Amino acid sequence: MKKLVRGGTVVTATEMFDADVLVEDEQIAWVGRSEDAEADEVIDASGCFVLPGLIDNHTHLSMPFGGTVTADDFDTGTAAAAAGGTTCIVDFALQTDGSLLKGLETWKANAEGRAHVDYAFHLAVSEASPEAIREIPRAVEEGVSTFKLFMAYKGALMVDDLEMLNVFEAMAETGALPMVHAENGDAIVFLQERAAAAGELAPRFHATTRPPEVEAEATSRAIRLATWAGSPLFVVHVSCEPAVAEIQRARDAGLPIYGETCIQYLALTVEDLAREGFEGAKFVCSPPLREAYNHDVLWSALRQQALQIVSTDHCPFNYETQKSLGRDDFRLIPNGLPTIESRLAVMYEYGVRGGKITMPELVRMVSTAPAQLFGLAPSKGAIAAGADADLVVFDPSVETTISAATHKMNVDYNPFEGHAVHGEPRVVLARGDVVFRDGDVVSSPGRGRYVARDCVSLGS
Amino acid sequence: MKKLVRGGTVVTATEMFDADVLVEDEQIAWVGRSEDAEADEVIDASGCFVLPGLIDNHTHLSMPFGGTVTADDFDTGTAAAAAGGTTCIVDFALQTDGSLLKGLETWKANAEGRAHVDYAFHLAVSEASPEAIREIPRAVEEGVSTFKLFMAYKGALMVDDLEMLNVFEAMAETGALPMVHAENGDAIVFLQERAAAAGELAPRFHATTRPPEVEAEATSRAIRLATWAGSPLFVVHVSCEPAVAEIQRARDAGLPIYGETCIQYLALTVEDLAREGFEGAKFVCSPPLREAYNHDVLWSALRQQALQIVSTDHCPFNYETQKSLGRDDFRLIPNGLPTIESRLAVMYEYGVRGGKITMPELVRMVSTAPAQLFGLAPSKGAIAAGADADLVVFDPSVETTISAATHKMNVDYNPFEGHAVHGEPRVVLARGDVVFRDGDVVSSPGRGRYVARDCVSLGS
Amino acid sequence: MKKLVRGGTVVTATEMFDADVLVEDEQIAWVGRSEDAEADEVIDASGCFVLPGLIDNHTHLSMPFGGTVTADDFDTGTAAAAAGGTTCIVDFALQTDGSLLKGLETWKANAEGRAHVDYAFHLAVSEASPEAIREIPRAVEEGVSTFKLFMAYKGALMVDDLEMLNVFEAMAETGALPMVHAENGDAIVFLQERAAAAGELAPRFHATTRPPEVEAEATSRAIRLATWAGSPLFVVHVSCEPAVAEIQRARDAGLPIYGETCIQYLALTVEDLAREGFEGAKFVCSPPLREAYNHDVLWSALRQQALQIVSTDHCPFNYETQKSLGRDDFRLIPNGLPTIESRLAVMYEYGVRGGKITMPELVRMVSTAPAQLFGLAPSKGAIAAGADADLVVFDPSVETTISAATHKMNVDYNPFEGHAVHGEPRVVLARGDVVFRDGDVVSSPGRGRYVARDCVSLGS
Amino acid sequence: MKKLVRGGTVVTATEMFDADVLVEDEQIAWVGRSEDAEADEVIDASGCFVLPGLIDNHTHLSMPFGGTVTADDFDTGTAAAAAGGTTCIVDFALQTDGSLLKGLETWKANAEGRAHVDYAFHLAVSEASPEAIREIPRAVEEGVSTFKLFMAYKGALMVDDLEMLNVFEAMAETGALPMVHAENGDAIVFLQERAAAAGELAPRFHATTRPPEVEAEATSRAIRLATWAGSPLFVVHVSCEPAVAEIQRARDAGLPIYGETCIQYLALTVEDLAREGFEGAKFVCSPPLREAYNHDVLWSALRQQALQIVSTDHCPFNYETQKSLGRDDFRLIPNGLPTIESRLAVMYEYGVRGGKITMPELVRMVSTAPAQLFGLAPSKGAIAAGADADLVVFDPSVETTISAATHKMNVDYNPFEGHAVHGEPRVVLARGDVVFRDGDVVSSPGRGRYVARDCVSLGS
Repeated sequence: MKKLVRGGTVVTATEMFDADVLVEDEQIAWVGRSEDAEADEVIDASGCFVLPGLIDNHTHLSMPFGGTVTADDFDTGTAAAAAGGTTCIVDFALQTDGSLLKGLETWKANAEGRAHVDYAFHLAVSEASPEAIREIPRAVEEGVSTFKLFMAYKGALMVDDLEMLNVFEAMAETGALPMVHAENGDAIVFLQERAAAAGELAPRFHATTRPPEVEAEATSRAIRLATWAGSPLFVVHVSCEPAVAEIQRARDAGLPIYGETCIQYLALTVEDLAREGFEGAKFVCSPPLREAYNHDVLWSALRQQALQIVSTDHCPFNYETQKSLGRDDFRLIPNGLPTIESRLAVMYEYGVRGGKITMPELVRMVSTAPAQLFGLAPSKGAIAAGADADLVVFDPSVETTISAATHKMNVDYNPFEGHAVHGEPRVVLARGDVVFRDGDVVSSPGRGRYVARDCVSLGS
Repeated sequence: MKKLVRGGTVVTATEMFDADVLVEDEQIAWVGRSEDAEADEVIDASGCFVLPGLIDNHTHLSMPFGGTVTADDFDTGTAAAAAGGTTCIVDFALQTDGSLLKGLETWKANAEGRAHVDYAFHLAVSEASPEAIREIPRAVEEGVSTFKLFMAYKGALMVDDLEMLNVFEAMAETGALPMVHAENGDAIVFLQERAAAAGELAPRFHATTRPPEVEAEATSRAIRLATWAGSPLFVVHVSCEPAVAEIQRARDAGLPIYGETCIQYLALTVEDLAREGFEGAKFVCSPPLREAYNHDVLWSALRQQALQIVSTDHCPFNYETQKSLGRDDFRLIPNGLPTIESRLAVMYEYGVRGGKITMPELVRMVSTAPAQLFGLAPSKGAIAAGADADLVVFDPSVETTISAATHKMNVDYNPFEGHAVHGEPRVVLARGDVVFRDGDVVSSPGRGRYVARDCVSLGS
Repeated sequence: MKKLVRGGTVVTATEMFDADVLVEDEQIAWVGRSEDAEADEVIDASGCFVLPGLIDNHTHLSMPFGGTVTADDFDTGTAAAAAGGTTCIVDFALQTDGSLLKGLETWKANAEGRAHVDYAFHLAVSEASPEAIREIPRAVEEGVSTFKLFMAYKGALMVDDLEMLNVFEAMAETGALPMVHAENGDAIVFLQERAAAAGELAPRFHATTRPPEVEAEATSRAIRLATWAGSPLFVVHVSCEPAVAEIQRARDAGLPIYGETCIQYLALTVEDLAREGFEGAKFVCSPPLREAYNHDVLWSALRQQALQIVSTDHCPFNYETQKSLGRDDFRLIPNGLPTIESRLAVMYEYGVRGGKITMPELVRMVSTAPAQLFGLAPSKGAIAAGADADLVVFDPSVETTISAATHKMNVDYNPFEGHAVHGEPRVVLARGDVVFRDGDVVSSPGRGRYVARDCVSLGS
Repeated sequence: MKKLVRGGTVVTATEMFDADVLVEDEQIAWVGRSEDAEADEVIDASGCFVLPGLIDNHTHLSMPFGGTVTADDFDTGTAAAAAGGTTCIVDFALQTDGSLLKGLETWKANAEGRAHVDYAFHLAVSEASPEAIREIPRAVEEGVSTFKLFMAYKGALMVDDLEMLNVFEAMAETGALPMVHAENGDAIVFLQERAAAAGELAPRFHATTRPPEVEAEATSRAIRLATWAGSPLFVVHVSCEPAVAEIQRARDAGLPIYGETCIQYLALTVEDLAREGFEGAKFVCSPPLREAYNHDVLWSALRQQALQIVSTDHCPFNYETQKSLGRDDFRLIPNGLPTIESRLAVMYEYGVRGGKITMPELVRMVSTAPAQLFGLAPSKGAIAAGADADLVVFDPSVETTISAATHKMNVDYNPFEGHAVHGEPRVVLARGDVVFRDGDVVSSPGRGRYVARDCVSLGS
């Protein structure tokens, strides 16, 4: 079965050129121009960019949090992903009953039969017991090459420095990559208690009790701990200038420190969190949204590759029934935003059209870099012979407005509601299958496969 | 006329995959796998990497310096380039009789009818008179999009800060990119006079009178001057840690500052300069060779893209007849090394085999980045449909020893003499022509064309 | 009762001049030259420096540690202090049975009737319970204006970040000054376990498991925590370059961060810890002794006042009966060195004679700065009308060799054993009493008084 | 002849205590309390601070500049100084007809018979010829231990880097201290030309054409040049955050770099320069006045001793007849402010009463530090037996308003006009003579003497 994506402008992480892409079954056969090309189906890409399928390495589907569970499961979540041009996700499986492997099993079961696109898992380690650490090599064998630690959420997910060191050491030994949520959980408790004592309980105090320096301190500390244990490090959802500065300093010294930011930190601000009444709850995520000047800092860090990736940290909760748990106390608002569907639109609008990045840089940040850092390359993240035929035919001329009224996500609001953006996928192929076409998800739950990931050599 | 490069592993700046490359006339038609491919000639790339032709953006052919002239002209120099996998050079034309345009004419005349591979020019501004500055837009129209200033060589090429500012302002207005040789020329005179007064006249004092901080100061100052004038900046031949640190600091602040190093700073050291007798003269270049620890600093900066490019600063002088001018006083030794031919071998041996970089990183540093920064993309620096068919079929299994006895350069010594390296080009194609095959340059002088370059948007 | 200290060179923290000092009862009456001066006793200071009595703000007398107790009590410890020119100490009282006030009582009882010189107390908070924090204002009223927190000694004295923040907040509210022992206790456990697993149990591994960066990380974190809570901070026993750098960065930003080092970090090195056999145990203290290059870093920081004070961290354990607890495992060696007696000699020899500091700088570091930072001024730390007549007549011409054979401390070894030094006190006056003369302590236990200290305004 | 200053609070650079000061002839005999004290004259200091006489190490009396000459000569200038509590100045003698010694002679002649207080000279080197450099040792013998270089005023006073290095080397050899005016003169020309081309000629463009980074660059470069030549360095009139940061960085690395700021940079802002019409000309000095946030940066740097001194850069020009030269073009406005008289008032009001510094810190910054750094100690800058009886009886309770209507300076405006301040000298003694009492200068021209200064050891 051959498909020819014809007449588009192919964009890779470094180049952009007019070419056709021939797909044979699940893979790309060739990229170029050939008068002799024959195919069973021709997909018209004229006027469009042809991008490698996006990879979202930071999602939380069917995840329990604060007494509730995220609003998207692997069916609705990956359908929305596909609609946004994302053909592979790496979701976070949580340690369950103290066991990493049980966490992995649980999340695989969650995904089984439901996913529209390929998926893989990170494992979140919330209790770094010797038993849990002993499970790491087995988890690596099963295709989990990245493990996340939380420096925040004291009393729940948070680990202490000794646990971090022990996990980092296990990473160094197995070649896996540790990830950290870098905020000082103790400082947050301190600031939250001060705020509560002062009656500061509205959503906007979510930001004042998690100031930028609290993120920077944890970032700095995580870098040092990783260095002592001899492992590389990936910092998730970097949101602000002082945290970026810590990563820059480490990289300037040659250390193998990597990081991502998310679209909400590039396009939303703390002003959204301060909206009237309880509206701000729609924007509660951690780290919190920041002052607008950080947008440029993050774009610059991305361009110069102090940060490599833009993901979503998709973690959806319904406003009416879930966010509302914290109506009287921001500390009870479930943390997270529904963002999996809007990444390409936001990146194109604010990044490319905003003059911050080029199209190849966009591709690097949302596809090639996550594929390469997280062990999905060479199958994913590239438009090259032999790679999976994960392709997005992206029409930059379409003008739309992001809205909960039209999004595919299973959640009752959209944090980008009302943002007018350019561009949307015309067709999305995933391993050669058309999964999205002309506004509709056309795949079925269960076509997406689990992807076992390899460890990647990133230095130490 | 179709040529098929078959069975190799294609390497781009981000990916590596097994694929054939079909060349039609001067360009690449497609990259991939096709059972139906037909061609007039099949070039066997089995066991080989297929790289985009290397670009050397820092060469000095037929250049007068200190009363003599560099030993390679555009015939011998570009033949040697081709033998080393370099299919395009950007040479430095010097301002002549006060005129930039006359400099360009002179260098074009030097190249005309002689070059084996494509060539372009930077212009070196040694006297930033109002007249010279007024010539800049015309030079840009003629395809010169980069202009170099010397902060060293007081009394000869050196310009002062006001001249730099005026040129940088002209760059900001035209979109051209300024380049600087960053060493504080006054400090060098001071230190040389102190050395001479102390009888320190052997070649090794070339290094002690140009210490790393003298390079760092000029780098720092150039960055500030460019920032004040609103222009980006490219720092040539960065050699050492403190200069790298200045560039890192600027980039971390989001400034559009770029830089290169050269193979000699990655593989040779100040110990070479200190060789017995006058032997050290073979290693006199500016900035001088540095202590070995800088190698790792430079590799790290390249990997993390604080520096983007590895060029050669090819500037050949014969040991017996030219370097010898400074037998009694290192200040009279012509500055420069013959290096144009060895870049791929040195980068593969010390970079890839040495575990410092990957093959895609090598390609990025020697081909894609120079093409993109210097206005040669998308024709050059890529293996993609529509790009020039500049290709190197590089066999990594061959073991050779670099030697003046076998090199193609027109000079009586090789600074890498005796270095055992792996890998050499099996075939080199330049715009579809085979120019090197099985050890021999098979092109003729004059096949190389002048390439007019565009200005590249790099921020301000 | 009048005493005239005649013919010496008075040294203050900023000046040095020839003058007599007239003492009336416990205080200084005037400083200068007067032909009319009459006195009951004339003390000959010819050829001598006349210094304000030294203040040692970091001592541990009769302190339980690791199942044993420090070898000097308030009698032997303060007698040794007097012999070394120290006329006032600030000892660390430990929180006892969870109570700070009980700790203070206990230490007051320890000192009562025993001390030869004046004494005050810091309180060490090892469990920052709400109850303990509520005791702080009362402790301040009783003259304890400084409270210390340990970031090391996990499972024993170590507090977590939240405890630190809560104590720092209490400091901000009362005006007291927090002090920290800055080493990351978790990292030390991690490194010690790695070392133990590798059979690395000799004394020298005390240093490898507490590397400089472990101190720097904690220093950095403590500074941030203090800043968030709005309090100033004093970092005790700063030992190495990266920790100094953290303090410099904070001070450069205008933050009220202060610090001390101790004589052992200025005159001993990690080589001492690596002495043959178990000899190294004599040099086990925390932070550990460092590489020699740090000496210059510390002298420089002291000179430029990034660090303000040189104290002793006197914490004596007998080699034969106490250090020996860790003969098979360095982790069991009681941490601490007997140093209270040698400060003036070491500072004069290595500091002044070594060309690192001037005499006024010496006075500033060992007397005036501790008096002013710790609320003992204006009575202490000055040679000025109205100040306590705490005076050291220091004869710089005497040559001696430090030795356990002759020291007054109640411990069986001296870490400076064999160091040949110049200068010793000829006479020491404490509140007008001669307490040391010609080699002998001539005071009685119990003449020293408890000094209630005030809070000092240091910014926030 | 004995005078007793009775009942005041003596303030030194480190202490503050109630004491009398007995003066015998020109010197201080003792400081303290003595019931037996007898004196020929008793000066009532009750309710007052008794300070060491202020030293102003940065004045320009009778100095030619831009075709005019400063409005105060050594008579009017030093009378105004005395009225402000300044009992010693160090004025800048300019190299004259290429000769340093001739410059010194000229300035000595200017001062001879005119000065009310003691005076010394720095030498400004505007042309570092070999001849001029050869004069340096002789100038040092004559009591000039400091030499200033201008990095600004291109075409007039400005020297290039090589001249700086040669002078710094001469400083290293003789032990003298180089001073620099740190602004990049080339950048100023560039920015001024741009401004002029845009018709930006009003006084406020004096600031936009000398931005903070232009000062920081020169500061950074001067530090490096001094380091290469092996000399310490004193940076005059530091005005802004980025310049302070360069000095901090150098000092943190242990380098012997020192600096001052002036009262105008602590109490006036760029808003003054932007006053309506030509009024801003009254505030034209170089570096220019800065944004208000720099005040806190400077106070902090002073407190933490990255900067040591607050001087005045007194350089008075009449508004009506001199500043007016630049009515149509700010480039022609003579640079400088009349400030010699207001230092103590400004420092007390904005520093001490403003909560930025303590009284001992004030004394350190305006008296003790300049005395010690510039070779005037131990005679000057101290209240100690044997020191010159230079004393200010300062009554902090008086409220006044600074005004040209009442000032002693020979100039028609005051930049602090209308500033309401507390405190003024009740009596000023200079070497035992009352020179100012109750609002009047009571000395005669010529009583002030030339003070030969020593070189001070400041490291290298």
